[in-house]
Amino acid sequence: MEIEKPLEEESIFSGKIIRVSRYKVELSNGVRTTREVVRHPGAAAVLPYDHNTGKVYLVTQFRFPINQMLLEVPAGKLDVEGEDPLSCAKRELLEETGIEAGRFEYLGYIFTTPGFSDEKIHLFLATELKKAAELSTDEDELIDVVEADWEEFYRWCEEGRITDAKTLALALRSRKLIENLP
Amino acid sequence: MEIEKPLEEESIFSGKIIRVSRYKVELSNGVRTTREVVRHPGAAAVLPYDHNTGKVYLVTQFRFPINQMLLEVPAGKLDVEGEDPLSCAKRELLEETGIEAGRFEYLGYIFTTPGFSDEKIHLFLATELKKAAELSTDEDELIDVVEADWEEFYRWCEEGRITDAKTLALALRSRKLIENLP
Repeated sequence: MEIEKPLEEESIFSGKIIRVSRYKVELSNGVRTTREVVRHPGAAAVLPYDHNTGKVYLVTQFRFPINQMLLEVPAGKLDVEGEDPLSCAKRELLEETGIEAGRFEYLGYIFTTPGFSDEKIHLFLATELKKAAELSTDEDELIDVVEADWEEFYRWCEEGRITDAKTLALALRSRKLIENLP
Repeated sequence: MEIEKPLEEESIFSGKIIRVSRYKVELSNGVRTTREVVRHPGAAAVLPYDHNTGKVYLVTQFRFPINQMLLEVPAGKLDVEGEDPLSCAKRELLEETGIEAGRFEYLGYIFTTPGFSDEKIHLFLATELKKAAELSTDEDELIDVVEADWEEFYRWCEEGRITDAKTLALALRSRKLIENLP
């Protein structure tokens, strides 16, 4: 097991979402190099699935870094480091889609981009859905809800209409559960 | 379609892999806010599948940002912006696993973390594999090759032993192709 030993940290930036540092590190073979690291508080993502209708609920929003609209599962970052991912998942689902769920199945986590960031996203399948009150998204999030059949959604993941990594990961991890629901 | 209009860019950091900027932006509802953006050159990832044996080849390496070893498909960043993703995929496959492939199937791309980065990873399924010469990884990459049956690999993705987002995306996008190979 190779470990990279940090020798020195240079703190570069502390923003409202990310922190950036550059490290001098020594590898187990003695080579010294640098590593650039973007720290992120972590996030939770939810696939809401209505077993009665076979529908899933997605959101579409403008993503500034890539300058385009993106179709994704509802998700959001942990509000404080250490926030319970399930609480975060419930909150983001309600805020972004107006849906509450009676049941959340934890499907593990993913690292989105381990080469330069520690971002970890916890994945949930939400079922027993009910429409709650009106939407209450943050004022800097302009989000539309998109409804799709599960099979259609999965095909979008396979065929590349959906390109968001956490959404693909959730589709993969949900498939057997959804297709085997009684 | 909501667009966020950049009003001002503050360049924060330009490293060997990433560039970081903070933008003042105006949303279509008139709200002004900031966006933190990590620019990345993009990458290619490859799932090498040997149809004769049913094996896939993965790599395990220490990932400094998350301070742990990670099991992933072979991948690497585009060497210069605009490098052909297929050339990158071939190079990284050879460097990291010592494998050459007669056939590469393009499976589209993913955005790994569109909330704060523009990183885009192109996905390929590689078949008609042959072992080339010895490994030639970069001196700051210490990488081990891991061989697994396709079914076992897919189960690892579903059950959470594999947590790398691009690897899950490739597993999802490859499944039908692999399971329908003649």
